[in-house]
Amino acid sequence: MTKPTATDIDSTGTSRRRFLRESGAMMGGVVLGGVASSEASAAAEAGAGTDNLPPNAPEWMKTPGEPMGSQLYGTPSPFEKSVVKNIPKNLAQYLSASGRTPLQDLDGIITPNGLFYERHHGGVPTIDPAQHRLMLHGLVDKPLIFTMDDIRRFPSQSRIHFLECSGNPVYTKPYGKTASDLCGLLSCAEWTGVSLKLVLQEAGLQSGAKWVVAEGADAAALTRSIPIEKCLDDAMLVYSQNGERLRPQQGYPLRLLLPGFEGNMNVKWLRRLRVAAEPTYSREETSKYTDLMPDGTAREFTFYMEAKSIITRPSGGQKLNESGFHEISGIAWSGHGKIRQVDVSVDDGKSWQQAQLQEPVLTRALTRFRLPWHWDGKPAVIQSRAVDETGYVQPTLAELLAVRGANHFYHNNAIWPWRIAETGEVTNANA
Amino acid sequence: MTKPTATDIDSTGTSRRRFLRESGAMMGGVVLGGVASSEASAAAEAGAGTDNLPPNAPEWMKTPGEPMGSQLYGTPSPFEKSVVKNIPKNLAQYLSASGRTPLQDLDGIITPNGLFYERHHGGVPTIDPAQHRLMLHGLVDKPLIFTMDDIRRFPSQSRIHFLECSGNPVYTKPYGKTASDLCGLLSCAEWTGVSLKLVLQEAGLQSGAKWVVAEGADAAALTRSIPIEKCLDDAMLVYSQNGERLRPQQGYPLRLLLPGFEGNMNVKWLRRLRVAAEPTYSREETSKYTDLMPDGTAREFTFYMEAKSIITRPSGGQKLNESGFHEISGIAWSGHGKIRQVDVSVDDGKSWQQAQLQEPVLTRALTRFRLPWHWDGKPAVIQSRAVDETGYVQPTLAELLAVRGANHFYHNNAIWPWRIAETGEVTNANA
Repeated sequence: MTKPTATDIDSTGTSRRRFLRESGAMMGGVVLGGVASSEASAAAEAGAGTDNLPPNAPEWMKTPGEPMGSQLYGTPSPFEKSVVKNIPKNLAQYLSASGRTPLQDLDGIITPNGLFYERHHGGVPTIDPAQHRLMLHGLVDKPLIFTMDDIRRFPSQSRIHFLECSGNPVYTKPYGKTASDLCGLLSCAEWTGVSLKLVLQEAGLQSGAKWVVAEGADAAALTRSIPIEKCLDDAMLVYSQNGERLRPQQGYPLRLLLPGFEGNMNVKWLRRLRVAAEPTYSREETSKYTDLMPDGTAREFTFYMEAKSIITRPSGGQKLNESGFHEISGIAWSGHGKIRQVDVSVDDGKSWQQAQLQEPVLTRALTRFRLPWHWDGKPAVIQSRAVDETGYVQPTLAELLAVRGANHFYHNNAIWPWRIAETGEVTNANA
Repeated sequence: MTKPTATDIDSTGTSRRRFLRESGAMMGGVVLGGVASSEASAAAEAGAGTDNLPPNAPEWMKTPGEPMGSQLYGTPSPFEKSVVKNIPKNLAQYLSASGRTPLQDLDGIITPNGLFYERHHGGVPTIDPAQHRLMLHGLVDKPLIFTMDDIRRFPSQSRIHFLECSGNPVYTKPYGKTASDLCGLLSCAEWTGVSLKLVLQEAGLQSGAKWVVAEGADAAALTRSIPIEKCLDDAMLVYSQNGERLRPQQGYPLRLLLPGFEGNMNVKWLRRLRVAAEPTYSREETSKYTDLMPDGTAREFTFYMEAKSIITRPSGGQKLNESGFHEISGIAWSGHGKIRQVDVSVDDGKSWQQAQLQEPVLTRALTRFRLPWHWDGKPAVIQSRAVDETGYVQPTLAELLAVRGANHFYHNNAIWPWRIAETGEVTNANA
């Protein structure tokens, strides 16, 4: 894959422009005059070079706005108050529960910290960083206890990676209505922290060290076993997310980050790393996050989130107000590396077109894809299919079910089609 | 510059590890035993594979944490309440004022939206996006008025770019104490919107179109003239920032983004674009954002923010608690493109070492740089010097003053040294 130059980006614009012209659609804007005649007068006046306040200036130009400092830490516009985490209203209890990112309302690849997805097993602890400790012990030459200041003293690194829950979505119907219902246990951020490899080297690994058992400082003491290979590869001890310190919901003051591994293994509120010869078979490795296969065996330690994509616009719950040009946009990701290609079908899977990928395409990060589309106003089914750098192709739900059976619960990375009605309403085509 | 592979990143870790060993510093962590003996017992118990709650578990493991949904839109930990925008307490008035990003508290390159810097000239308007319009007129074939829905219909693009105020800092003493005081009118985000070129092509540019005059819908009706070349290059009409819609302070629902140009030209609350043959010489192009040169002429239309860098850790107001290993970390950026190199001096400018740049290095975006450093506990002066892809080298303050004179106010991109005292206290070496 070659990177586009500034010239390429311009020529993309030009070819899309051609698309608009050829589609015969007059899109984006009302020609001045008619209903806009008073504004046209203002325009004419302004065009004469006076640059005075136009006579029809909106209310908010006529009085001063909010003064500086009304928000020392900013919040979204009151007109965006519906864009919040997607949390089911009738859960039996809220201590072990999840809150989803509203993917259908977001652009780009960065998830703002306020809308990052949440999943916890014993509520969100409020941890004083001055009292927090990380203990590193087990099969090491030199067991160590770190304060947060100690952790911050290590050389740092920053990388953009996605995080995804392994049950995103589960295989059980109903699958949900919106992109958030289906895929909202997924977010992406710039993480800063320390290479876990460096910290393990500081303690010195002993022979026989094959696993690292990570424990969280929450009421669930969430515990997961991680293969030593991952710990010596790109694993990080993370203290910052999108520039600022981690939010409590994301593990403040310290979490594990295992790029591409299922969300719960990226242990939050990290307090302990025990180097061991064997995995620990914790509750989250036996009663949860393990799947029953059709032959009766358990599929356990399913670390990697496989290649996946979803169209977020247009998507379930949205409506196309008119036929003509619509951009199809979505996100693709793979736990195994970079996204190589995303194909989009607008005819219920009969044919596929290659979408444009937004550069830079980063490893184990969300990748935004886009395809210009002329909707003819007739019913349609649209869907996307990701291919990652290993050559793996995102499967259909039928293909997944055929292999994994009806009892499978986690790791559903199926292609997800949206149905568009003649009215323009978009719904889940698998529901 | 070649991109590091996963192997390179590992070997970087290894070479840093060597640095730690060679520096003879025992850093990061207390060896288990002694003060940590009760935790060592817990460790031993856990090492036996029981994985029960350790006897000295912290308070927050003994009771459930906050339930899901206590924050539908998340906020930082209460322990981070001091990390807020840096706003002077004794301003004459707060309608035309600025609030700075706390750079010394941030990691990576993404600025979270809540801490993005602010600068406004008539307060922050509260705009209903359903009522907001963008008018495009002047030297065009087809004057147009767009609703926000119209704008959202266009093909989109997402890019990570910095924004910086041209007075960051001004040349007047005192320059400030912290990195935020000096350089906090600077932030970086992933922006999503529409190519301005595409929108201008939709209206059709007429011959003689040399400038686009942009007007904001705030009480200041902030107005700036932009060369048509920039408008046909990488300029964008932006509606989203770090995934979600723009914050009110950053121009909700629509702003102009001119990557690399001084902040105020990236007109917020954008309501009007007038295509013209000449610039408009607005208030912000005459009484402000123009500089008096030593020969009495005015330096006007100083669009580009030139290459610059600053060390954010350690930086003014911070303190090194002990000698030994400390990572020097900071940010570099250039309005002219990518950062090619950052040099760091730890001996008051006598010698310079090349810092490591965090990949990916993006054009007109912040670039995080890092240098491992062994502080010997003696007084030191540390500073960084950016070089961009055009070969331009960040100048010293003395070099800038020699060319621009004492009346210059904007565009101070000088190297900024920090003085480290024997006590470890860090102060502004130019103050």
